[in-house]
Amino acid sequence: MPSPPITSLQNQRVKDAAKLRERRQRDKQGRILIDGARELLRAIEAGLELTEVFVCPSLCQTDDSRRVLDLLDRTRAEILHVTPEVFGKLAFGERAEGVLGVARTPGARLADLDPPADALLAVVESVEKPGNLGAVLRSADAAGVSAVIAAGRGVDLYSPNVIRASLGVIFTLPVAAATAEETKAWLASRNVRIYAARVDARQLYTETSYAGGAAIVLGSEAAGLSSVWSGAAVTPIKLPMHGAADSLNISAAAAVIFYEALRQRAAR
Amino acid sequence: MPSPPITSLQNQRVKDAAKLRERRQRDKQGRILIDGARELLRAIEAGLELTEVFVCPSLCQTDDSRRVLDLLDRTRAEILHVTPEVFGKLAFGERAEGVLGVARTPGARLADLDPPADALLAVVESVEKPGNLGAVLRSADAAGVSAVIAAGRGVDLYSPNVIRASLGVIFTLPVAAATAEETKAWLASRNVRIYAARVDARQLYTETSYAGGAAIVLGSEAAGLSSVWSGAAVTPIKLPMHGAADSLNISAAAAVIFYEALRQRAAR
Repeated sequence: MPSPPITSLQNQRVKDAAKLRERRQRDKQGRILIDGARELLRAIEAGLELTEVFVCPSLCQTDDSRRVLDLLDRTRAEILHVTPEVFGKLAFGERAEGVLGVARTPGARLADLDPPADALLAVVESVEKPGNLGAVLRSADAAGVSAVIAAGRGVDLYSPNVIRASLGVIFTLPVAAATAEETKAWLASRNVRIYAARVDARQLYTETSYAGGAAIVLGSEAAGLSSVWSGAAVTPIKLPMHGAADSLNISAAAAVIFYEALRQRAAR
Repeated sequence: MPSPPITSLQNQRVKDAAKLRERRQRDKQGRILIDGARELLRAIEAGLELTEVFVCPSLCQTDDSRRVLDLLDRTRAEILHVTPEVFGKLAFGERAEGVLGVARTPGARLADLDPPADALLAVVESVEKPGNLGAVLRSADAAGVSAVIAAGRGVDLYSPNVIRASLGVIFTLPVAAATAEETKAWLASRNVRIYAARVDARQLYTETSYAGGAAIVLGSEAAGLSSVWSGAAVTPIKLPMHGAADSLNISAAAAVIFYEALRQRAAR
């Protein structure tokens, strides 16, 4: 039996969890916040180390939130019942599915990735918008990409908005955060060929073979790619661009290239 | 010379324009609101019938907004100077580029579309989220799709959020709104082959030839496609889906299929 519901917004556990919406607090506490029943389900399925799950039973109305409740005994999380008012503070009223998780921040270390030698990998450099990073993760997941590396300094991989935009695939898909230099060196050490999507490339993405180990590198729409992704070890590739706008959204561009690689691999 | 700047939030012109954020008022006034200098630039380039442009000179700091000012004499729009406070009300503080347009609602009639016989067309049915509809328009523009038809009842094609998410390509790309039945009949009358993206399809999108006139039909992630898009005249196609999530975002799925059609066409 859980203890009686927490009724106070001043409860320290509630306050500490609510603070996890701030990056500084996530870094300090070494924990992250998981909104949304679907996202929490994926975290549980992926074996994430949940420390607490806040539950407001009267708000658990969706199939996904009921399924989370069924699976909670698989985790070592402490279950904290809260009133709707307290849940509203924690969930910011954004998600009213009655469950909210707190987990230890996953390591997301490059050294822990071990994709197969012929894997298709994705690198996203300095994509600042959480919605875009999450959407790229979703495209990578759908296309069967083996791992996604967020390259850059101080990438905020596990912000609540990235988690949500990824629909929780950030937990089920192997991911890592590292600097661009570390990422490039790691790819080289594994003999992975590197293809960088650039608007000024001459080679079309469809005239490129993605056989063997291959990494697709994508930059933000605003900043493009850093100079790390130049030089002999990197093949620049481009998508043909018609129409009035300069570029596809990064998650759409990512999906197009991932699926072309997938098409070529399936055809072999 | 423009008249002296409007300083009052109670000014009727300002109030009427601000009301255009509501759909009911757009329908009633037969006018739309165009936020953002880039979007307004595309509207001017596309020859949209602008009736008014609100300008706050001190806020016009970007290249795009200065370019709008340069092009204003190409339009018949009345130029109304406003103070930063008044502009803030009109623009909701969302866009502070100092220019905001009001235009007659484009007809967006199916009968006015006249794509080439071998055109690649896109149909999006009942995509309610403005961000998704705008993003599909952007994917279609980038891939060189000839026209996009928003199918369904009461599609709100020109909401400010669709315009913004499309980066303004909604003005440069031929678009129409019609019911699904009208759209299907129009496609049939032009001998356009119809391919409907469905998760339960058996035929892969890569095993499909998009030669000749072809229309790709996409539904919302939540609702899927209506029964109009079943039957002998429609070929269901699917994207292979790996990973944990059920589906790609609609604009990413759209981009993948459009670019596959483009790849096949370029290869011929």
